[in-house]
Amino acid sequence: MPTTAPRYELHYWPSIQGRGEFVRLAFEAAGVEYVDVGRLAPEKGGGERALLAFLREQSLATPPFAPPVLRHGELVVAQSANILLYLGPRLGLVPDDEPSRLAANQHQLTLGDFSDEAHDAHHPIASSLYYEDQQTEAKRRAAIFVAERMPKFLRHFEQVVARNGRGGGRHLVGAELSYADLSMAQVLWALEYAFPKALARFTHEIPRLCALRGHVAEQPRIAAYLRSERRVAFSRHDLFRHYPELDLDSP
Amino acid sequence: MPTTAPRYELHYWPSIQGRGEFVRLAFEAAGVEYVDVGRLAPEKGGGERALLAFLREQSLATPPFAPPVLRHGELVVAQSANILLYLGPRLGLVPDDEPSRLAANQHQLTLGDFSDEAHDAHHPIASSLYYEDQQTEAKRRAAIFVAERMPKFLRHFEQVVARNGRGGGRHLVGAELSYADLSMAQVLWALEYAFPKALARFTHEIPRLCALRGHVAEQPRIAAYLRSERRVAFSRHDLFRHYPELDLDSP
Repeated sequence: MPTTAPRYELHYWPSIQGRGEFVRLAFEAAGVEYVDVGRLAPEKGGGERALLAFLREQSLATPPFAPPVLRHGELVVAQSANILLYLGPRLGLVPDDEPSRLAANQHQLTLGDFSDEAHDAHHPIASSLYYEDQQTEAKRRAAIFVAERMPKFLRHFEQVVARNGRGGGRHLVGAELSYADLSMAQVLWALEYAFPKALARFTHEIPRLCALRGHVAEQPRIAAYLRSERRVAFSRHDLFRHYPELDLDSP
Repeated sequence: MPTTAPRYELHYWPSIQGRGEFVRLAFEAAGVEYVDVGRLAPEKGGGERALLAFLREQSLATPPFAPPVLRHGELVVAQSANILLYLGPRLGLVPDDEPSRLAANQHQLTLGDFSDEAHDAHHPIASSLYYEDQQTEAKRRAAIFVAERMPKFLRHFEQVVARNGRGGGRHLVGAELSYADLSMAQVLWALEYAFPKALARFTHEIPRLCALRGHVAEQPRIAAYLRSERRVAFSRHDLFRHYPELDLDSP
């Protein structure tokens, strides 16, 4: 009997990039087939209701706390960094040696922390409340995010590229494209959307990250993906949001 | 020539439990020797100044963004979940199969998210500001943390134990003590310190987590550690903090 390799299923919110985008970019860069289940039509098992039903599915041996969730055959795993830890070697998006894999995971986790702080800049009180109901607090938190945290994270990652002797000045880890590079580029694109003024002011300090971002954007599969309908547009429903009043409050 | 196994060095803030405590508990439970470098006397290379100097060390091939950092021979890794991913198999604190290891990592990451939210309940605007300078916002955020987020996380982990058929009702993953169990117990102890009223009200809903916590506390090495001077006391400088005004605002 012929056996078929199990398909990769991503279960994530259909209308945002969010933390699922790190996983989408890995599949797209590798050119590996995957099903973005939430983005299927409801009659094909997609949509938000299907996602919520999946998350509540009592038969999952390890319940996920939140999406993204990857299903691959019998395996069901949650947490974006954990999903990429699993996919990285299978998609050829991480070096083979253990130190490099730990470094890629470390960078992914720090990018996740960075993204969470960018989210909390517009939602400092609660994700369950509207932005308008925490705008005063958001202005206070965003001013500090832009003045202190964003520069601290960006300088850190610029140093990571600088010290990666094998990376030719454009990779976080190793000598080739890794999922950490894809996630770094995604965070830079998202910052450019959400905090265009603050990022523009900072660009001269991060030449290596700009080179990395350019290198990722030039990958033919990534370039095609970014132009396609599969790429969800940035919006004010997402992890990173553009509110002009939160961008760059000092001269 | 005799070769010596490299020693485990933990580099973390000396006066708090913080995210480093998840790593300390793993070493203590395994009974494996480690050096908690920050807690050594300054003349022996310890203290905060030594930690800050280590973090700025230009010779580290992969710079850490923040502590905790583990050094083991040539390897230097940051991010508590990543450190435990490395240590788990070496300390015998995670099952051998890949699905279980991914599950343990997933739980560790979710416990990290839970801890971050508990931190932001008292510091919703910025870690760089005093609590007193964000107390108004903290009251608002903590009320939602206690009413919505803490119950959601705790119910999730109760479900994780319930569905782990091999765990005898007291393990998050597998049939034996894992680092995920240690971290779960640590979060419960920290919640008991920081939000005693809110946790007490909720205890009847999490019998399995209470059993897990008791099982961890009964491990002889853990029991000895918790009584020792090596265990840093809870305090208002830490990740979890007790401010009576942030605990349980509804009846």
